[in-house]
Amino acid sequence: MTNLPIDPLQSGLVDFGKRLRSGHISARAVTKAYLARIENLNPKLDAFSHVEVDQSLKAAEAVDLMLSLGIDLGPLMGVPVAVKDLFAVAGMPAKAGSNIELADCIGSEGGFVHRLRNAGCVILGKTRTVEFAAGAQNLIHPTPWNPCDMETHRTPGGSSHGSAVAVASGLCGFAIGSDTGGSVRQPAALCGVVGLKPSQGIWPMDGVFPLCPFLDTVGLVTSSVSDMAVAYTALTGCTVKESYEVAGLRLGIPGPDCMESMDADVAERYELSLKLLEAAGARLVSLSWPTKTEQQEIKAIYSGMVPSDLLATLGRERFQDNYHQIDPVAIKRLEGACDLRATEYIRLKRLQERLSSLADDRMQDLDGIIGPTVPHTPLPVSEVCVNVSNASAFVARSLSYTRAANIYGMCAITIPISTPPGMPVGLQIACSKNNEAKMLSMANVISHVVSA
Amino acid sequence: MTNLPIDPLQSGLVDFGKRLRSGHISARAVTKAYLARIENLNPKLDAFSHVEVDQSLKAAEAVDLMLSLGIDLGPLMGVPVAVKDLFAVAGMPAKAGSNIELADCIGSEGGFVHRLRNAGCVILGKTRTVEFAAGAQNLIHPTPWNPCDMETHRTPGGSSHGSAVAVASGLCGFAIGSDTGGSVRQPAALCGVVGLKPSQGIWPMDGVFPLCPFLDTVGLVTSSVSDMAVAYTALTGCTVKESYEVAGLRLGIPGPDCMESMDADVAERYELSLKLLEAAGARLVSLSWPTKTEQQEIKAIYSGMVPSDLLATLGRERFQDNYHQIDPVAIKRLEGACDLRATEYIRLKRLQERLSSLADDRMQDLDGIIGPTVPHTPLPVSEVCVNVSNASAFVARSLSYTRAANIYGMCAITIPISTPPGMPVGLQIACSKNNEAKMLSMANVISHVVSA
Repeated sequence: MTNLPIDPLQSGLVDFGKRLRSGHISARAVTKAYLARIENLNPKLDAFSHVEVDQSLKAAEAVDLMLSLGIDLGPLMGVPVAVKDLFAVAGMPAKAGSNIELADCIGSEGGFVHRLRNAGCVILGKTRTVEFAAGAQNLIHPTPWNPCDMETHRTPGGSSHGSAVAVASGLCGFAIGSDTGGSVRQPAALCGVVGLKPSQGIWPMDGVFPLCPFLDTVGLVTSSVSDMAVAYTALTGCTVKESYEVAGLRLGIPGPDCMESMDADVAERYELSLKLLEAAGARLVSLSWPTKTEQQEIKAIYSGMVPSDLLATLGRERFQDNYHQIDPVAIKRLEGACDLRATEYIRLKRLQERLSSLADDRMQDLDGIIGPTVPHTPLPVSEVCVNVSNASAFVARSLSYTRAANIYGMCAITIPISTPPGMPVGLQIACSKNNEAKMLSMANVISHVVSA
Repeated sequence: MTNLPIDPLQSGLVDFGKRLRSGHISARAVTKAYLARIENLNPKLDAFSHVEVDQSLKAAEAVDLMLSLGIDLGPLMGVPVAVKDLFAVAGMPAKAGSNIELADCIGSEGGFVHRLRNAGCVILGKTRTVEFAAGAQNLIHPTPWNPCDMETHRTPGGSSHGSAVAVASGLCGFAIGSDTGGSVRQPAALCGVVGLKPSQGIWPMDGVFPLCPFLDTVGLVTSSVSDMAVAYTALTGCTVKESYEVAGLRLGIPGPDCMESMDADVAERYELSLKLLEAAGARLVSLSWPTKTEQQEIKAIYSGMVPSDLLATLGRERFQDNYHQIDPVAIKRLEGACDLRATEYIRLKRLQERLSSLADDRMQDLDGIIGPTVPHTPLPVSEVCVNVSNASAFVARSLSYTRAANIYGMCAITIPISTPPGMPVGLQIACSKNNEAKMLSMANVISHVVSA
């Protein structure tokens, strides 16, 4: 990894924008540098399933031309981005990580990708996803290489693993993922970067393969909290306050029941973060929720509804006809949904609505909830990819801390609290719905405290 | 029916409000007059399942007191209203037309009834509903008497039949119903009064027995379009323009495929209305939708989703345990839902969302769609109440013109185009979602034209 082309965005989006506008760099040169990095690193990392040389260079040239004419599309102009292969992007393949034909389920390029283009982003290509974005690990599809360890192939999690690996290894300025139960936060945490799962509805979901439409959200992966704030602001129009105080923040701490099976290295980093936050004046509040019952309900909602929605999207016929081409981890979940009754689905959907409404009430006295994002550090692929049952168990455990935020209808972000050369550990901050701007302000000051 | 206490609201809500405020009448005297009318007429009409003497007199006295103190809650102050027994009203029984225990499904008094109270309405009691509001006719539960014919017991339709009969026979100022597939419009049309099904979401649905939450709406029954505008404005805060022109209105006419099985007397009145509207300058536009396929889809959505949601609300155990206490017409529908799979439910839900989005697009060039509300005039109960299969066939036919508006996510209103002593016939006007105010303005001018 020596003598690599430079990563032009390593000092962040704000600095990049300044250098682009002052003429120190051009969008074309930057795009070429990223394409060169991808050419060098992607054969090993396998973050991208598709690299788009022509389209990205043309987009970069257009950016340079616009800037020379005084047209400025804002802070993401000329930023090379990577898009999870769950999204349709005009002129690029869209496979949702699958070997079977899914174009009819994905549709044509939708509102979110359109927003990226209108912001002047340069789309470098498509990043790998777990098949159908269902879970965090496949058996028959390739697993990108987690750049935290270049010797041992460790899992970057999933489903947005290509996007997390691309950001962690400097193969793009930032990346797009999707999050239904942790699919952005979990790989971001395992790769030592920042991952945002916003509230449902802030970004359009057309042109994205639907896993479970009432839980799916677009998500973002960035190198830093400040880059996340820049990207979020540019893509929503909402401002994120920079000045914020840790002192006085009321932060909920989930009870020990909610954090079963946490590894010692994660627990150590997490407890250190809590101490640092308390020392900085944050008020830590021990929570009595999710209760044991709610945890079981969350599990039931996930295992009942998500595969049913997926099976409805695929259709039983396509599922049967392509049985042997679908990853066995997905097959196992889909089979569980084949006989679910409509009344049980409705019961689970209403339960989810009740939990979401409960969370709204409970969050009134809290600024946020903090906890570890993932109960473990990146595991060797050889350990989590033995067979269907061990891969499924890994998925269930690995996403067990993130999916509650989706069910409760909250927004959440993961920030690194331990980065390479140590094993990456993420801290998850969850806030009540539609509080992304405040959450990003909090994440910014919290990240300064916990990385101190 | 001679020597009956006067109906103090027969000249409308506006006039009533003036007389109340000028001291010509008191809320207490008006409430007593309605209670006397109910005592006289309800034994035959059976519109009310519960009459609340004490609470209503106390509410009326409070209105008189407030007015004497200069406190004015607006145009519905002191108006005696009747509430469908699907709604929880504090201090009154709530049975959703059933013999089985449903308090847990209904909950406590919700936002809409609260709004009635805050507007100063006097709640006289609860009106009869078809069991669970599912359909338009029961076999084991009583059917209120349609006041269009005091000799023969004719069906007032359903499910909000008590509310329609109460308004048509002057037993209240106006009444509250609910509409999932026509449950306000169909009985209003059959009783010769006005019925409003607003867009989903304009009024809260808590404290109302849920039949199918994504289609259910609160609905209103009034004697006239102008009363409907007064009630709608008071209960939403949205203004309805009084000045409006029929000339230039673009009114869609559903194709003949959509109006199968229309009786000759209905067709005659409907065609006359179309001629009158055309003569008044309306542009009638023949529509090619709902297509045959869409009509089948609408039927599939209804027969698949509504009973599944109902069964999920009841729970299988309660359904089995109370099997012999439930009306056989409801049993037949519920049994059809027992084996529906989750994936089929999801497919139907997505289909409904697609149809709703299609309707939004198609309505861009139209002010509204007009058609008959019900394909027949009120039939003798002895004809539609023979057995499960003939009652079910009646329900399916009778609601066949109304349910499309629910599936397409539109708002709709029925206005009388033939009233007693002739058999009542209703004209349905449907508009794109959240266009209630415009629809009420249109209904007002259209009603003047078609009753000319």
